[in-house]
Amino acid sequence: MVEAQPTHTIHANDRNHTVGIVGLGLIGGSLARRLVARGADVIAWNHRDHPYAQAQADGIRCMTTLAELAQAQPAIIVLCNPLKAMPAILAELKRSLNSQVTTLTDVGSVKTMVREQVNDAGLGECYVGAHPMAGNELSGWSAADPALYNDALWAVSVDEHTDYDRFLAVARLIVQGVGNRIIVINDHVHDGAAAMISHMPHVVSTALINEITAHPDRNIAAALAAGCWRDMTRVALTDPNRTRAMVDEDAANVETLLRSMATRLTDMADALRDGDSDRITDFFAAGQPFRDYKAAQRLRDSAGDPASVPGAEQSEYDLHIDPDHWRADLLASARRGEHIVAIRDSYDMRVQVRSAI
Amino acid sequence: MVEAQPTHTIHANDRNHTVGIVGLGLIGGSLARRLVARGADVIAWNHRDHPYAQAQADGIRCMTTLAELAQAQPAIIVLCNPLKAMPAILAELKRSLNSQVTTLTDVGSVKTMVREQVNDAGLGECYVGAHPMAGNELSGWSAADPALYNDALWAVSVDEHTDYDRFLAVARLIVQGVGNRIIVINDHVHDGAAAMISHMPHVVSTALINEITAHPDRNIAAALAAGCWRDMTRVALTDPNRTRAMVDEDAANVETLLRSMATRLTDMADALRDGDSDRITDFFAAGQPFRDYKAAQRLRDSAGDPASVPGAEQSEYDLHIDPDHWRADLLASARRGEHIVAIRDSYDMRVQVRSAI
Repeated sequence: MVEAQPTHTIHANDRNHTVGIVGLGLIGGSLARRLVARGADVIAWNHRDHPYAQAQADGIRCMTTLAELAQAQPAIIVLCNPLKAMPAILAELKRSLNSQVTTLTDVGSVKTMVREQVNDAGLGECYVGAHPMAGNELSGWSAADPALYNDALWAVSVDEHTDYDRFLAVARLIVQGVGNRIIVINDHVHDGAAAMISHMPHVVSTALINEITAHPDRNIAAALAAGCWRDMTRVALTDPNRTRAMVDEDAANVETLLRSMATRLTDMADALRDGDSDRITDFFAAGQPFRDYKAAQRLRDSAGDPASVPGAEQSEYDLHIDPDHWRADLLASARRGEHIVAIRDSYDMRVQVRSAI
Repeated sequence: MVEAQPTHTIHANDRNHTVGIVGLGLIGGSLARRLVARGADVIAWNHRDHPYAQAQADGIRCMTTLAELAQAQPAIIVLCNPLKAMPAILAELKRSLNSQVTTLTDVGSVKTMVREQVNDAGLGECYVGAHPMAGNELSGWSAADPALYNDALWAVSVDEHTDYDRFLAVARLIVQGVGNRIIVINDHVHDGAAAMISHMPHVVSTALINEITAHPDRNIAAALAAGCWRDMTRVALTDPNRTRAMVDEDAANVETLLRSMATRLTDMADALRDGDSDRITDFFAAGQPFRDYKAAQRLRDSAGDPASVPGAEQSEYDLHIDPDHWRADLLASARRGEHIVAIRDSYDMRVQVRSAI
C-alpha cells in the first residue's frame, strides 16, 4: 500500500488548547466535565440551552451559537451530537470554522458513514474519527458524569488522507486530556468489528424474540426462561428503532456476518440431524481461543498485580512508529491486541500488551 | 384425543408422607433442606457420604444405600442425581422400591429422555416428570440453600399413562410441601420450550464466539466489546461439554429451531442487501408482543400491589378440571400463561393469571 504523504499541516496555535464540545448529552456532557476537571479549557454548544446553567457552574464556557463556538478557534472540536444531526451541524461548521487551526473529531459509533458526511461537507482535511467505548443505559446532560470515561478505550479512525499532526492532536486529547487508552484503526476495520460485537448480535437477539413470539408454546417457554434467555434477549428489548438505525448505518458488514452465522447454525443443525459427533465436537471447540482469552482477562482483572499472573501479563513497551507507514504500524499494533497508553514523542508510543485471542 | 383411563392407583399409606431425595447436590440438597424446614420428613441418599454429617444435623435422615432409601417406602422419591447416573439408579430402584406405594419424580432439565430411561427400567407406571426453574452457577451440597426455591416455578410433565393420583401427589409436594407454583405440560412441550429458551440459545451464543474467533480483526472486535457482547456470549463461556450434553439430549428440537433461526438471519441479510425497508421494519416489529410482555412483567414486578397496575393484573381464579380431560385442561391453562398456586381439592386448582405473549 502506498501511503499518501500529509498534504496539509495544522497551524498549531500555542496559545489555544481550547477544546470545543458540540452536544452536552451523556457522552458530550461527561467528556466536557471530565476535561474541565483535568484542567482543560472547554467551550460547548448544545442545541438547547437547558444544561447551560449547570455546565457554566461546572466551568464549561457555553456558547450561544455553533458559529460562535467555531469562531473561538478551538484546537479540537469534538462532535458529540446525535448522528442524525450531523449533516446540519457539519454544514454550519463549514461556514464558520477555521480549518487551518481547528481539527474535527467525533464520538460516533459508526465511522464510515460519519467520514462520508464530513467529506460531503468539505471538511475531510481536518477530520480524525474517534469512538469511545463508554456509555450506559442513561442519556442526557442530567446523566453526565466524568467517571463514565474511567479506564475507557477509544478507537481512533484514520484514512489515507489523515494528517499525522491532526491525528496526534486527537490522540493527545484522549490519552493526556481525558486520561484514556487508544487503538488506531481505519473506518472499515472499525465498522466491521462493531458489526461483530454489537450490530450483528443485536439482530440475533431480535431474531430470538421473533422466534419465541412465533412459538406455539410461547407462554410456556417464557415461563421456563432463566438467565440464559434473559441475557441473550436483553438488547432486543431496547428501542427497536434505535437498533434498526444502528444496523442500517453498518448494513454491509451486518449482512455478511448474518450470513456467516446462518451457515454456522445450519451446519450445527445438520450435524445434530446426522448425529455427527465429530462435527459437534468441532463446533464446541471452535470458540475455545475466545474462552481462553476471557479466562486470562478475568484472571488479570482479579489480580492485584497483573504482572504476577502467569500467562496474563500486562506488560508495556515503547513502540516506535515509522513516519512512512504510521497507519500500518498502528493498525498492526491494534491487531496484536495492544493499547496505546502514553505518547512519549511524536512517533514514540507507550503501548500496553493485553491478552490476545 | 382419547384420554387413557388410569390403569393403576397408588396405595396411599396415610402413615407415610416421607419424601426421599436421591442426590444431595445443589438442587437435591436445597430441596431436602427446604422440605425439612417446612416440616416434612425427609430421607436422602447421596453417592458419596461427605454431606451426611451436615445433612443429619439439618434434620435430613441419611441412608447408607439407595436400596435402604427405597425400602423405607417413601410416598415420593425425587431423583436429583446427575442425568448420566440415571440408568444405574433406576436399575437399583427397580430392584428395591415398592411401586404400589412410592411415586417417582425427578428434577431433570429434559423430560423425554428421562421418561424413556424410566420406562426402559420398567418404572414408567409410578413416574411423574418434574423440572424446577431453580439453580445458580454453583453446585454441590456446600451451595445447597432452601432459598434457591423461593418463588420457583416447576414444570410437571405427564403422559397418557400418568395416574392422576400420582400426579396429584407430586403436585401437592411441590405446591404445599415446597411452597412453589406449577404448570402441567407433557414431555414434548417441555423439551420444545426448553430448546426455545435455553438449548438453542446456548448454541447461538457458542456460534457467536466461534464467529469472533474466526474474525480477522478479532482482537480489535474484542477490545470494542461492551454489554451487548458480554451478555450474549456469557453462556458460551461455561463448560462446553455440559452445553453439548444438554443439546444432545434435546437434539431434534434444537435442530428445528436452529434452522428457523438461520432462515430469519438469512432473510434479514437479504433485506439489508436489497435495502428492503418494509422487510426490515417487519423484522424489528415481529417480536413486539414479547417486548410488551416483558414490559408488563416489569411493571407488575415493580408494583407493590399487582392489581393496581393497569394491563398487568395478576388475578387468580378457581380452575375446575374435567377428570376425563385433565391433561388437556391443564395444558390449556399453561398455554394461557397461568400458574397453579394452590390445590383446593383433587380436581380444583387455584390458578394465577400472568401476563401472556
